[in-house]
This record gives sequence, C-alpha cells and structure tokens, in this order.
Amino acid sequence: MAEKNAKADKNAKTKLEGLGEDIVGEIGKGQNPSFVATTRTRSNIVYDKKEGYLRLGKSEEERSFLNVAQSKKFMQTMAIAAKCHKFLKEGLHTSIRGLFYQLKFSLGEDVDESLFEEQSESNPLIEDLEVSLGVKREDLNLNANRKGVLAGSMKVRDTFGGERVEIDCSKMGRAGWPIPSDVDNEIEFVDVKAKYVLVVEKDALWQRLNEDQFWKQENIILITPGGQASRGTRRIIRKLADKGLPVYVFTDSDAWGWYIYWTIKTGSINLAYIGSSVATPEARFIGVTMSDLDKYPFLNKLTIAASDVDIKRAQEMLNYEWIKGHKEWVVELERMVKSKKKLEQDALQGPRLTFVGEYIKDKVKNKDVLP
Amino acid sequence: MAEKNAKADKNAKTKLEGLGEDIVGEIGKGQNPSFVATTRTRSNIVYDKKEGYLRLGKSEEERSFLNVAQSKKFMQTMAIAAKCHKFLKEGLHTSIRGLFYQLKFSLGEDVDESLFEEQSESNPLIEDLEVSLGVKREDLNLNANRKGVLAGSMKVRDTFGGERVEIDCSKMGRAGWPIPSDVDNEIEFVDVKAKYVLVVEKDALWQRLNEDQFWKQENIILITPGGQASRGTRRIIRKLADKGLPVYVFTDSDAWGWYIYWTIKTGSINLAYIGSSVATPEARFIGVTMSDLDKYPFLNKLTIAASDVDIKRAQEMLNYEWIKGHKEWVVELERMVKSKKKLEQDALQGPRLTFVGEYIKDKVKNKDVLP
Repeated sequence: MAEKNAKADKNAKTKLEGLGEDIVGEIGKGQNPSFVATTRTRSNIVYDKKEGYLRLGKSEEERSFLNVAQSKKFMQTMAIAAKCHKFLKEGLHTSIRGLFYQLKFSLGEDVDESLFEEQSESNPLIEDLEVSLGVKREDLNLNANRKGVLAGSMKVRDTFGGERVEIDCSKMGRAGWPIPSDVDNEIEFVDVKAKYVLVVEKDALWQRLNEDQFWKQENIILITPGGQASRGTRRIIRKLADKGLPVYVFTDSDAWGWYIYWTIKTGSINLAYIGSSVATPEARFIGVTMSDLDKYPFLNKLTIAASDVDIKRAQEMLNYEWIKGHKEWVVELERMVKSKKKLEQDALQGPRLTFVGEYIKDKVKNKDVLP
Repeated sequence: MAEKNAKADKNAKTKLEGLGEDIVGEIGKGQNPSFVATTRTRSNIVYDKKEGYLRLGKSEEERSFLNVAQSKKFMQTMAIAAKCHKFLKEGLHTSIRGLFYQLKFSLGEDVDESLFEEQSESNPLIEDLEVSLGVKREDLNLNANRKGVLAGSMKVRDTFGGERVEIDCSKMGRAGWPIPSDVDNEIEFVDVKAKYVLVVEKDALWQRLNEDQFWKQENIILITPGGQASRGTRRIIRKLADKGLPVYVFTDSDAWGWYIYWTIKTGSINLAYIGSSVATPEARFIGVTMSDLDKYPFLNKLTIAASDVDIKRAQEMLNYEWIKGHKEWVVELERMVKSKKKLEQDALQGPRLTFVGEYIKDKVKNKDVLP
C-alpha cells in the first residue's frame, strides 16, 4: 500500500526522512543534533486580525540532544518520528494511543526502558513534530477522534485498505456519511454541486433537515459536527470553503453554541498550531439568535432560562476586541445578559416539524446572518 | 409519505388510535377514562434467568383521569399520544426534545397552559406510552441519540425522506455506515453474508480493523458502538443475532468495558422496559482478558494501573448471582482485584498494528471466549 500513498503522505514521509538525515549528518560532523519547533505556549498564540483566526506567533524553540533538560524529550521525539515513518512505509494508520503502545512495546528493544511512562508524554511531542515538519498528525497516519456526519450533492472518492470506493453523499438515506479523521490523504471530494454549506450543531436537527431532504431542496451540503467539531469536521468545512462555498453555522443561542461557532470560524487555542488548516473565518452565524424573538414571536414562549455559564460567557465575550467591533453581536449578547433567557435550535420545531427548514431558507434569502 | 410507512409504523398508529377510541368510548359511557402501563420502578425490574436479560415484571399501574394524583399525567400522556399520532400521519420524525417543544408551543391552544414546564415531565410519559402500547419510541417516530458505525458484507435498503436507497456496507471506505436511531421501520438489511458479528468498543480499534479489511478477510460484520451502545446499535446487534449470527464483543478489560459488554448482552435497568428488543444474551466476550497476560506474554509490559472504580466494580460483580455461576469470570475479576492492573484493547497494537486482527482470529478459532 505504501506506493499508493497520496501526496501529503509522501510529503510527510520525505520530511521525516529529511529530519533523520539532518540529525545523522549533525552527529557525523560531531555536532549537537537538534531540531527547531515553533513554540506552542499560550504566549505564542496570536489572533491574526487580518486573516481572522488563531495561529502561532514567530517564537521558536530549539530541541537539542546535548542539553540535559531536553535530552529525554529529544530522544522521545525521535522515537515517535521513527514509528510514524514506519506507519507511513507500511501504509497503516493508528491512534495516538496506538502509537503510545507501540512505543511502550519497544522499550528495552530499540527504545530506552525509561522513555515512555504515560501517553501525556508522547502527545505534546507529536504536536512538536507536526509543527516542526509543517504537517498534520493525520499526514503522519495518526487518526484523531472522529465525529460529525454529512449529506448533500457531492461524492467521496476514498482509497482505503487497498481498495477504491466512490460514495454518493446524496444516497446515504437516514444515516449520512460519517466524516473521517483524515479528509486529506487518499480521499477526494468531487461533483460538489452545492450553493452553500450548512453546519447544524445537533445531530437531532440534522436528522430533521435530512428527512425533509432539505439539502436537496436547497442544493446544499448539510453537516452536523454533533456538538463541538472534531479536527476532521473542521478540516472538511475549511476544504468546502476553499471550493468557494459560503458556510453558515446554525447552533443554539447559548454559551456552548457560540463556542462551537467561534471554534469553526477562528479556530481554537489547542489547534492554533494548525490554525489555517482548520479555521474558516468566512463562516457566518445563521442563528438561532436572541433577535429571532422579535422576528418569530412564537419563540417567546419557547425560551428557557440561561445558565450562569451562559451569562458569564456572554459577559466575557462582550469584552473581546473583535466582538466589540460587531455591533450585531453586542446587541445579541447584551440581550441574553439582560433577559437571562436563551433559545435552542430545537425550539424551531414548535409550530411544525418542517419549520426548521423554512427558517433557514428565510435567513439565507434575507442574508440575515451575524458575522 | 404517510402511506409509505412500514408495518411497525402502521401498527403504532393503529395502536394509538385504539387507545384514543377506548378513552372516547369510556367518556361516552360516563366512565372514568384510563389506561394501563406496566410499572417501570426498580422493584418491577427482574433479571430473567431463563432468557438471560433484564425485563419488567408483572406489576401494572392504571392511570386514570378522575384521580387527583394522576389527572395531570393522564392529560400529558394524551397530549403526547396525540402529537406522536400526528408525526406518524405526517410521516415525519423528531427527537424527544422536538416533541417537548411541540407540546410547549401548543400550550394555550389545544393543550392546557400549565401542562408542560420541563422535558423531564414528558420523558417518562413517553416510556409509559411505549410500555402500554407495546411499541418502541422509534415506532412513534421519536428518534433517540445515535452512535455507532458498521462495515461488512451486507446491504441496507433504506426508505427515507420519500426516497429509496441501497447502501453497500462493504463499500463505505474508511468511514463505515453510521447506525441510525431506528433500524426497524422502513429499513431492511439484506445480503447479510457473514460468519459472525464483532462489536469493538472503541472507534479507533474499529478503524484499525477496517483498514485491514478484517471484515472482508474474515467475512464478518464489524460494529463499533463508540463506547456504551446506543438504542439503535443494541437493536441492530439483536437483529443480526436473530439472523443466526454469533456475536462477539471486544472491549478493554476494565469496569467500563465490562459494562459495555453486559449491557449489550443482558440489557440495562433503563431499557428493561424494552428488554427483549435490545438484549443479546447469546453474545460472548472475546477479550481483552486478564488471562491474555498468560497467552500473550508481551502484554505484561503493556498493562496499566486499575482505577479504584475498576477494582470496586470487579468486587461488586463477584457478588452477582450470575457471575458466581461462571468460573471464568470469577478468575478474571479476582485477578484484576489482586493485581490492581488492567489491560486496554489498544495494547494489542504493541508488536505490530495488524496484531489486533491476528488476536481476534486466534480467539475465534480456539473458541477462547467468556460467557
């Protein structure tokens, strides 16, 4: 299978080999072997105002072997690089837990006995490698947790396990196509004939819209991250935006819903190191909003009490530089703080189950979205 | 779409109509309208030794309108029954949260103002209806949360949203087919050409085996519940067992893994009221086990510390009547308690990623499973 690896895989493999050659070269010359990784500490995470997402700053760290404080980490990172190189050669994938057990298994053989005790030791070093090589862990054949489902007018060409399959995302019935961890390597999205992407926070609402064949009626791609979006889901949203599709996000009007939206749009602290790959600053917030209470009066009897977390979060958001610049968001958040009420996307089913789709159509038609 | 509803749907609709007619009849005769539901309290949940699953006992409760303590609940239940009947007529589905909002929306119209405040009021009444009519909530067009993925030599014929699709579960690539909430109505499983069903606790391990096309090599159906099994996943395992397929469950050797196994096998307290539909007493436990430490010596360096929860749970299980009868389980549990160590299924990837499949093959070949 190794020969079949797609570009990014080959790229990652070549980069790992380059890293190895550099280090062997340094040792050969009697130098102190080392490599450089961009610092991932909080102080080096910046919100890029121009691009609209969280990314790493310019601060770099050198990890060298002949440094007492770094020597162990250096060796651990090399052990991880060697394992990933093996996975790429084999054309096989595993999780970061699987990698950890491979490292533990090798203790006393090719890896030093005391090298790995806990997975918490290997995880940050994988990120070191990702940053230093400019690849994502998925490119190193390390799967992340997956979550999220998609339906719509597009096809998936997937080369996997030695076979090629083509999946028609418009023919997946009630189930949809589950978004994998890796949406870049040996997978292609073709015949994407859609007007926009709709990201629906809850699977229950996705199922509602899927049953109405809303994606077909409206000619869109319908995605649910099933709560907070996984790496794979964030990545596929980015890829669909790259094809020129507008992205609308539809969540509850509460702290958790906003968090889901802003993570899709601007990325997150944890993934700032791959920010540009997983953030979609073009995304717009379609609802539900507190101002929907004026547009759809029936919603007033369907609000529920905002929790302390919701209110605290709204107050925090009001202090963010980039929220202050969006007066629509200021109005929203102040209304929640004042009324101590919130609104769930599920409430749109009150008058009739099919109202959810009518609402989305209205919002898109009237360009009634938040930035 | 209503005309297209499959048998069970029509059945549920007819049953709801029967309930309504009975009540109207009673009112017409000047009687106190009422209906009967099997009691779902803990005291009426029994472990059926002969059948091997948790089910309700014989205790019944009558809910009547002209009883001050029951009057509100009676009216609430009728309001729920009316909504479900409407969903079935429309041929549309929603979640129990969607149902709650429909009830709340109708307040002051056809439903009394004070009838529903919280979803916690409607949830148990849905179960009342399920029990009293002998249907599952899925038959009432109420979707439950879904989770779980399947791959293997079988096809799904799904009639949904007014269209019929056929999905080949052997052509789903890296993704698999996501198991829906309802696997009974307007859905069929055909060409099931498999030797057995393998249920793998963690999605990461499912992905590992899927990549090896293990389901194809071995000619099996490969399922992951992704942790604790959803109603839909438990139900599809039951349905596959009904087709005569042996079911093997593969989890971690720890409290959570055992809980997943026993829930699939014997059902659970919460779902005892639909016990026979979601329990698979024929299921066998394939591993990982503490005795694997003798059979696969390399695993000894890959154990991790058992948590207090793991040890406490093992001690509790040792007191269960039905565990005492299985000496293999007694040996397992005592070993965990004594050694304070546990073993994860991920550890099987230690020597090589493909070892997971070799392990399963060994176990099946040698019939090395626990009851």
